[in-house]
Amino acid sequence: MSLLEKTLQQIKPQDADCRAAAHARLEQLTMPHWALGRLMDLAEDLAGMTRSMHPPVARKAVVVMAGDHGVAASGVSQYPQEVTVQMIHNFVNGGAGCNALARQVGAQVIVVDAGVAGDLSALVESGKIISKRVAPGTANMHTGPAMSREEAIRSVEAGIEVALSLADSMDVFATGEMGIANTTPSSAIVAAMTCSEVEQITGRGTGIDDARLQNKIAVIKEALRVNKPDPTDALDVLAKVGGFEIGAIAGLILGAAALKKPVIVDGFITTAGALIAQGLSPLSVQYMIAAHRSVEPGHCAAQERLGKKPLLDLDLRLGEGTGAVLAMNLVEASARILTDVATFAEASVSTAH
Amino acid sequence: MSLLEKTLQQIKPQDADCRAAAHARLEQLTMPHWALGRLMDLAEDLAGMTRSMHPPVARKAVVVMAGDHGVAASGVSQYPQEVTVQMIHNFVNGGAGCNALARQVGAQVIVVDAGVAGDLSALVESGKIISKRVAPGTANMHTGPAMSREEAIRSVEAGIEVALSLADSMDVFATGEMGIANTTPSSAIVAAMTCSEVEQITGRGTGIDDARLQNKIAVIKEALRVNKPDPTDALDVLAKVGGFEIGAIAGLILGAAALKKPVIVDGFITTAGALIAQGLSPLSVQYMIAAHRSVEPGHCAAQERLGKKPLLDLDLRLGEGTGAVLAMNLVEASARILTDVATFAEASVSTAH
Repeated sequence: MSLLEKTLQQIKPQDADCRAAAHARLEQLTMPHWALGRLMDLAEDLAGMTRSMHPPVARKAVVVMAGDHGVAASGVSQYPQEVTVQMIHNFVNGGAGCNALARQVGAQVIVVDAGVAGDLSALVESGKIISKRVAPGTANMHTGPAMSREEAIRSVEAGIEVALSLADSMDVFATGEMGIANTTPSSAIVAAMTCSEVEQITGRGTGIDDARLQNKIAVIKEALRVNKPDPTDALDVLAKVGGFEIGAIAGLILGAAALKKPVIVDGFITTAGALIAQGLSPLSVQYMIAAHRSVEPGHCAAQERLGKKPLLDLDLRLGEGTGAVLAMNLVEASARILTDVATFAEASVSTAH
Repeated sequence: MSLLEKTLQQIKPQDADCRAAAHARLEQLTMPHWALGRLMDLAEDLAGMTRSMHPPVARKAVVVMAGDHGVAASGVSQYPQEVTVQMIHNFVNGGAGCNALARQVGAQVIVVDAGVAGDLSALVESGKIISKRVAPGTANMHTGPAMSREEAIRSVEAGIEVALSLADSMDVFATGEMGIANTTPSSAIVAAMTCSEVEQITGRGTGIDDARLQNKIAVIKEALRVNKPDPTDALDVLAKVGGFEIGAIAGLILGAAALKKPVIVDGFITTAGALIAQGLSPLSVQYMIAAHRSVEPGHCAAQERLGKKPLLDLDLRLGEGTGAVLAMNLVEASARILTDVATFAEASVSTAH
């Protein structure tokens, strides 16, 4: 059995008994009923995911999957492709947005080359990034499949391997990504998986102007026309209009779910990865936490498909896992509500009359 | 000159030069333009408030102002008044929602008796709470003014004194409160200050049923009819339909603004206090950060009056400063964006073409 097949078999639903026990305790806390709202929903989820009334959430990692995209040659981004490598150096040097936010929450930033076009050998050899490179960038989906089905599976298994390698050292995962042009395959995936109009789920990414946006929409439409991805076959969608880092994100999510650990899903690109994970294992959704609502217009449709309401809505559009890292504090706060707040009986406080 | 008058004189606008310097740096960070959205707006605000490109935000206090309300006798809450004292013991013992969330963010919980009806002398003598009691609970605003104008001033000055006493030990304040029935004066204040219909800004507080809600609305309408608070005179509004803890919250905000420190405003009740502060000093609004959007229907109108958009929207309705404490992490994250993220030049990353 392949690693992917084995992982899919290991994904089980949240534990109903632990959810029920958490729910019962949360209803007895010294506050009006369910007065901490969605954080109490999340606390119940954490108990169900981790099978614990003391959900472990202290050790946190944001995994930044990096990849390049052949479709960058079709003029869909305003940044040159070499920025992917430059930003990886920035991550390693601790200077990027995700580094700053990860320091605030005490999370580790783990950078993975899932399929970058440039030379990263020095960073791999010095152990500063993890190499899971499937190929040096995808082919251009504008004219044919981004990758083969075998490469799609390899990218997903790369993410699973990263999750498994962190099983003993991390309690909570956050999905991050870096890859110039990667909102383009993400929009294509979301359009395919949600059967949405490309115009409605395609945005400005890093901030392209109207002319580039029209070109981006045309490129995505042509990619979908040429490749005809099958929305009932997530690996087909990933192979035809995806990206290596997107596959690796799907794998990270599947690995986290198999490990019964929460995985916080960041913005538009990693939510596209989450849709691939959902296609491969609908149960994996039970381990996902939607961090925030991105500025990208397709994010809403993707989150609706997952059945997830995001925790934050702060006009973020950076990626890198930044929104997921911001949500880590809310995840920790939710666990604290379950473990640290006294019940009416414990605190001798009168109940409602 | 009174402490209140002196404090009002000390409140100055945010510093325009510091705002501009922060804005210029934020525009050069290694990310698409303003890609961290509202956290970058907040970073600019923090620089303007604190006059620093490294806004100090590490030392955090949530100040829980407690008070009782004569209007509780008019059947507006489902909890008995003794819960105010019981919950103060819960705060001191670390078992309440705000304690759990404060521990997560490393904030100190400071409990102040601004006008509680019960005996708290043991906690005051042991230094576990601060006594600023104006009186043992307000009079019933249903039939007359909640307090005299002199008491209103005393309650505001109590809050200013607390802020000043923390000037050297705290960088960021969060407003908290506890007081059975205190959504009732809060709704009256918001109705008066925003000229809203009582029905539209009155909610279920701790969770009252339809019959109690109708009674609560009738009580608030009668209180406004009997007392005729003058919306152009914040002290008049506070005296006639306010509460001691609400005045103390207004004072805490004014004190923070005079100290040029950010103050995170929590839910419906402390936002009513913020409206009193705004009435006394429109400039004080420049030091306020709106933490979250409460379930209470009047919160939106109150925040609009302040011109503030909340950071979080998580169906919270607990009070105690819980939402403000949750937002502390976002405030720290915003400061990190300003101080920790590299610019394109610093990181040798290519800019958009």
